Amino acid sequence: MRHLMNPLDFSVEELDKLFALADDIEKDPTKYAHKCDGRILATCFYEPSTRTRLSFESAMTRLGGRVIGFSDAASSSASKGESVSDTIRIISCYADICAMRHPKEGAPMVAAEKSLIPVINAGDGGHQHPTQTLTDLQTIRSLHGDLNNFTIGLCGDLKFGRTVHSLINALVRYEGIKFIFISPEELKIPDYVTDMLREKGIPFQEVIRLEDVMPELDLLYMTRVQKERFFNEEDYVRLKDFYVLTPEKMELAKPDMLVLHPLPRVNEISVEIDDDPRAAYFKQAQFGVYVRMALILTLLGLA
Amino acid sequence: MRHLMNPLDFSVEELDKLFALADDIEKDPTKYAHKCDGRILATCFYEPSTRTRLSFESAMTRLGGRVIGFSDAASSSASKGESVSDTIRIISCYADICAMRHPKEGAPMVAAEKSLIPVINAGDGGHQHPTQTLTDLQTIRSLHGDLNNFTIGLCGDLKFGRTVHSLINALVRYEGIKFIFISPEELKIPDYVTDMLREKGIPFQEVIRLEDVMPELDLLYMTRVQKERFFNEEDYVRLKDFYVLTPEKMELAKPDMLVLHPLPRVNEISVEIDDDPRAAYFKQAQFGVYVRMALILTLLGLA
Amino acid sequence: MRHLMNPLDFSVEELDKLFALADDIEKDPTKYAHKCDGRILATCFYEPSTRTRLSFESAMTRLGGRVIGFSDAASSSASKGESVSDTIRIISCYADICAMRHPKEGAPMVAAEKSLIPVINAGDGGHQHPTQTLTDLQTIRSLHGDLNNFTIGLCGDLKFGRTVHSLINALVRYEGIKFIFISPEELKIPDYVTDMLREKGIPFQEVIRLEDVMPELDLLYMTRVQKERFFNEEDYVRLKDFYVLTPEKMELAKPDMLVLHPLPRVNEISVEIDDDPRAAYFKQAQFGVYVRMALILTLLGLA
Repeated sequence: MRHLMNPLDFSVEELDKLFALADDIEKDPTKYAHKCDGRILATCFYEPSTRTRLSFESAMTRLGGRVIGFSDAASSSASKGESVSDTIRIISCYADICAMRHPKEGAPMVAAEKSLIPVINAGDGGHQHPTQTLTDLQTIRSLHGDLNNFTIGLCGDLKFGRTVHSLINALVRYEGIKFIFISPEELKIPDYVTDMLREKGIPFQEVIRLEDVMPELDLLYMTRVQKERFFNEEDYVRLKDFYVLTPEKMELAKPDMLVLHPLPRVNEISVEIDDDPRAAYFKQAQFGVYVRMALILTLLGLA
Repeated sequence: MRHLMNPLDFSVEELDKLFALADDIEKDPTKYAHKCDGRILATCFYEPSTRTRLSFESAMTRLGGRVIGFSDAASSSASKGESVSDTIRIISCYADICAMRHPKEGAPMVAAEKSLIPVINAGDGGHQHPTQTLTDLQTIRSLHGDLNNFTIGLCGDLKFGRTVHSLINALVRYEGIKFIFISPEELKIPDYVTDMLREKGIPFQEVIRLEDVMPELDLLYMTRVQKERFFNEEDYVRLKDFYVLTPEKMELAKPDMLVLHPLPRVNEISVEIDDDPRAAYFKQAQFGVYVRMALILTLLGLA
Repeated sequence: MRHLMNPLDFSVEELDKLFALADDIEKDPTKYAHKCDGRILATCFYEPSTRTRLSFESAMTRLGGRVIGFSDAASSSASKGESVSDTIRIISCYADICAMRHPKEGAPMVAAEKSLIPVINAGDGGHQHPTQTLTDLQTIRSLHGDLNNFTIGLCGDLKFGRTVHSLINALVRYEGIKFIFISPEELKIPDYVTDMLREKGIPFQEVIRLEDVMPELDLLYMTRVQKERFFNEEDYVRLKDFYVLTPEKMELAKPDMLVLHPLPRVNEISVEIDDDPRAAYFKQAQFGVYVRMALILTLLGLA
C-alpha cells in the first residue's frame, strides 16, 4: 500500500506513467467511468478548501466511486479530542482511500502511519500540497508539450508560496529548465532554494519587475501578493502593480507563453486576460481532475 | 446551452413541456432512474437552504446522477476572495450542471455569463427563486387540474414575500385567474403589482381578513407574517390571528380548495389542518422533486 | 413501516436475525452491493457526529444506495423555526429512509410519528443511541462468540455514560452475564440500574480499581472519565490513573479478554494497547458498518 504525502514521493518515471494515465482519461473518459464502482473515497478536510475537495469528489465520481467525508474540523471528531491516528483507523473501516487536508504540517503523514487505506495529502498547512504540484506539472506537460527545456517565470509571493516551492522542487528533476523569480525584495525566493539551484547547476535569475523578463518566458506562474506581507504601505503602493498581469504586459510576452495560477485569484491577473488563448489557469482546474483520477486509480492498484 | 435565472425564462409552451415531463416522471420514475448516469450536479449554496438543496440533490440522485457541492459560504472559496465568475469557471471543470444559491441578487446571473455548464438560480437574495415558482405551478396544475380559470387567495406578507411576487408574475400568463390579496395594511401587495394587473385587465381584490373571502377561493397560498414587519405591537396583536389558518376558517372554504405554502411554516397554518385532504403543502415538496428532475433533464438536453 | 428509536425496539429473536444478516454481509459483501440501488438515505444531523454519520453513509453506499443530508443544525431549516415534524414530512419526499441525530431527547421519536419513511435514531441527547448498542452487541457476539455467559467489566463514567446504560439494558435480555462496575464514587452506576439488576437476579459487583477485577473479566468496556465530573481536583488526581488502561493492567487480564470502547478515546486507553490482539475497539467501528447495513436493509424491507 502506498500514500502520497509529497510530490517527490513518485519518481520521474512513476510520474510519467501517472501523467500518461491522466492523458488517457482525458482522451477517453468513458473507459474509466466504472473503474471505481463500489469504492469509497473519504474526504477528511480539517479546514475548508472547496476547490481541492470538489476536485477530489469530481475525480472519484467520474470513476464511478462514491464519496463520504467532512468539510471542516467543526463537524469532525477532532472537536471531541480524537487524534488524527484514531480518526484514520476508523475512516479505514468506512472507506477505501482518503484525501486529507489539515492545518497542521505533518498531520496526513501521522495519519498515513496508522492507516489501513491509502492516504493522499490534500494540503497540510504551509507544508505540502502534492496534488496541486502534480496538476501544475500535468498542465505544463499537456499544454507546453514537455516537462523539459523551457524558461519559467514565477511571480509574486515567492517567500511564503507553498505551491511555488513544491513546483520548483518537482521541476529540478527535469532537464534544461531556467527559473526566473519575479518578486519584491520582501517576498523573494528563500536562500535555501537558490542555494539548491546553484548546487545543481540550474540557471536562475531574480528580478523585481515582471515587464523586464516577460519576452523571455515560456511559462509564467502567477501567485497572489498580499498587502499584509509588506513592511510598509509605501512599498506596497510602489510595487503592487508590478505583480498584476495586464493585457499590456501580455503584449510583451511570446505568442505561445502560458499563464498558470494555482487559484483562487484575487486581482493579480486582470479578467481581460481570461479569454487570451495563453491563459491556462482555468484549464489547470480541468487537468487537476484528470490527475486526481489517475492518482486514485494508481493508489488503489487499479491503474 | 441554457440557464434558469427567472421563472419567466421559459415560455408558457416550454413550461407545458417541462410540466408534462414532470408528470411522466411522477407516473413512471424507474424510466428515468438512469437518465443522468455519469452526470454530476454541483450544489453551490453560498447561504444555507436545506430544503432547496436536498430537493435538488434528491432530484439528481433519482435520475442516477451524482452530487458534489457546498452548503454555506464559509466552506467555499468565496472566503478567500474569489469571485463568483471564477468559481463557476472552476465548477464547470468539475460538474455538468450547477444549482446556485446566493444571498446577493444577481449573483447566479453573473455566474451564468461565464459558465460552461447550465446554471440554475436556486434563490438569489430577495430577488428570484424560480424552482419554487415552477413547483407552485406544477402543484396547482396537478392538484387543481389546470393553470387557468381559478380564484387564488394570497395571504400574509405580500410586501416582502419573494415567492408571492414570482407566482403572480408567472400566473398572469394564464387565462381566467382572479387574485385576492389578503394582508394587513403594512404588508399589502406593492403598487407596481396592482398597476400591472390593472394594465393587463386582470381582476383582483384586496382584503384584510381571510374569513371574508374564504368561500370564494379555489386556491389559498399562505405565507408567514413576521412580527418584526409591523410598525407597532398593538397592530400585530390585533391582526395576527387573521393570518393564521385554523380548522374553523377551513370550514368556510370550498370542499376542494387547496392550501399551498412555500414552507417552512412556523405557526401560520395550524397543524390540525395537516390531515385535511385540502392541505397541499407537503405534496408541494414532492412536486418540487419532480419539477427539478424535469428541469435538470431539460437543461442537460436529455429531455 | 418500522423505526428504530431504542435498542430494545427489536426482540432478542429479531436481533438474532439482524446480527446473522450482518454476519452474512461481512462474509460476502458483494452479494449486497446493489441491494439499495436507487434508494436514498437522508442523514439529518442536528448536531455534528462525524463518526456516526460517516458510518451510516458508508453503510448505505456499500449497499449501492445514495446519501443526502446535513451535518449540523446551522445548515438545516431548524434555524428558520421549522419543527422536526415538518422537516421529516419534507424529507419523506426526498429520501427512502432517514438517520436522525438531535441534541434534544425524544426528537427522533416526534419525527417518527409524522414520517412516511423509516427513521433511525442516530443519537438523541443523553437519551438513546441504539445503533451504538447494536454495534457493541454485534462486536461481542462476533469476537467473543456468544451474547450469553460472560463477565463484563464496565469502566469509567458509569453515571452519565449513555452507551453504558443502553448496553446494560440490552445485555440483561441474555443469560449468564455478570456485570462488574468499575468507577469512582462520583461516577458510579445509578441506583435504578442496580435495583433493576437485583430485581432480575442478575449478579453484579461494584469496585473502584480496575486492577482488582481485571483477571475475572471476559470483556472490558472502557469509557472516558472527564475531569469536569469530579467534585475536587484532589480526587481526580488520586483516582484518574485507575481508569487508564495500560499494558501493565493488560498483563493481569485473561489472554482472550476483549477491550471495547465506543470511541472517540482521549487518553483512557494507552495507544500501546492498539496492537494487542485483545483490542477490539477499532474492529467495533467495522462491525458498526455491517450492523447499520443490516439495519437499513431490515427497515427498508429488503432483508
